[in-house]
Amino acid sequence: MKPLYVIKIGGNVIDNSENLYHFLKDFTALDGYKILVHGGGKIATQISEQLGIEAKLVDGRRITDIETLRVVTMVYAGLINKNIVAQLQRFGTNAIGLTGADGNFIKAVKRPVKTIDYGFVGDLNNSSVNANNISNLMEAGFTPVFCALTHDGDGQMLNTNADTIASALAVALAKHYDTTLIYCFEKKGVLKDINDEDSLIREINPLRYEELKKEHIIHSGMLPKLDNAFTAIACGVKAVVIGKSDELGKLGNNEPFGTRLSKSNIS
Amino acid sequence: MKPLYVIKIGGNVIDNSENLYHFLKDFTALDGYKILVHGGGKIATQISEQLGIEAKLVDGRRITDIETLRVVTMVYAGLINKNIVAQLQRFGTNAIGLTGADGNFIKAVKRPVKTIDYGFVGDLNNSSVNANNISNLMEAGFTPVFCALTHDGDGQMLNTNADTIASALAVALAKHYDTTLIYCFEKKGVLKDINDEDSLIREINPLRYEELKKEHIIHSGMLPKLDNAFTAIACGVKAVVIGKSDELGKLGNNEPFGTRLSKSNIS
Repeated sequence: MKPLYVIKIGGNVIDNSENLYHFLKDFTALDGYKILVHGGGKIATQISEQLGIEAKLVDGRRITDIETLRVVTMVYAGLINKNIVAQLQRFGTNAIGLTGADGNFIKAVKRPVKTIDYGFVGDLNNSSVNANNISNLMEAGFTPVFCALTHDGDGQMLNTNADTIASALAVALAKHYDTTLIYCFEKKGVLKDINDEDSLIREINPLRYEELKKEHIIHSGMLPKLDNAFTAIACGVKAVVIGKSDELGKLGNNEPFGTRLSKSNIS
Repeated sequence: MKPLYVIKIGGNVIDNSENLYHFLKDFTALDGYKILVHGGGKIATQISEQLGIEAKLVDGRRITDIETLRVVTMVYAGLINKNIVAQLQRFGTNAIGLTGADGNFIKAVKRPVKTIDYGFVGDLNNSSVNANNISNLMEAGFTPVFCALTHDGDGQMLNTNADTIASALAVALAKHYDTTLIYCFEKKGVLKDINDEDSLIREINPLRYEELKKEHIIHSGMLPKLDNAFTAIACGVKAVVIGKSDELGKLGNNEPFGTRLSKSNIS
């Protein structure tokens, strides 16, 4: 199978034009099939404030009401996505900017109301990603750039977490490609000591993961991230790499990059 | 060659959810390859006002400054485009929403400053449209939906008139497809008497066009529209049809629709 990288970037890349510039250059230099997934960053919050739309919270959880959905559709699919696409085109990546509605690539289910009505939030399931359609697009020569929006197939756009989208894409496409999922964030990877960037753990396999949890080296915020990563690996993704966005170039140069999670590492 | 329809809609369809619903249903029912091009409507103006951005005019001409470009990128490529795509998906059209930056489909040149600096406005030329890339996308099973934005190939988005985009797409794709360009607007077509919808002229060829101009039946606002249409025909487009958006269904049923401009009509 041909190699595919699914790479997710968040606010620390999107909100900083210099970081974004270097990241997109490194992204272009990477060989093979590629999919970029981006979140929202601070711009959506800024535009919401300018439009006088207050962030709605219920029990501390963020709610996507219809006004917020309009803003994120404008900012994610419009402003951020098309800026990234135009930059990638400059570097020579034949990017095409997408939501899950485009090409019916990602069909979500509006989150059912239990105790909290999250509003226009879309959850993904095993049949959400149309891997054949995405594969057709890539084989036609295009590099997909997804923002954090999906649809319900019945005309409604939905807000969906970018990490979740990246993971669902990687799992679904693992049947077609030798797929590596990469989460870019602000640290060099999984650190033994969060205050020491030199304490990077290079490789983690499921056995080592259990040890790291027992030793309380991995805890709190990192746990759901790594749990999701190992779930993706159990579902066929070759490896999940967690690394710093400005070091992506190392991957292209076959240098060690971030923390590599996989079934078969020797750790 | 296979038939292709390039269909342009404007504010009277976009700003009215009922009109849009019926139009997109009729669009879906139309057989063959299709490209939809949409303008902006009133929403961009509303959002600009809400954000406190004043419309900039120089000598009565609208200027696209950087703030306005941000708004139209949000509204055209985000809000309007993705709403149309989600609706089309509901009806079964495998739509994919685009700007000219996506897939490097339409590369424009920032309008040179002569007496007026129009700002971030993109003009098109003979090599602007990448017909091969668009053809690849359509052959992969997707229906392109373009908004009125292009790029300069150097990372900059540009604002480009939707009529111009539709015409440039039709001309460029006429080498690959048997192309008909359709302008949907608020009237049934070209009328002998602008106040009488029953005075519709069914067909106009270049000879008849000259007569209609001499007789002052076609004048003022209609002249540039029809001049551009006949230019497109001279460049290989099979026919240009000007008709009412809510009558598009007639085209699918092979009933007469709007005013048909072509080289070879018997008028």
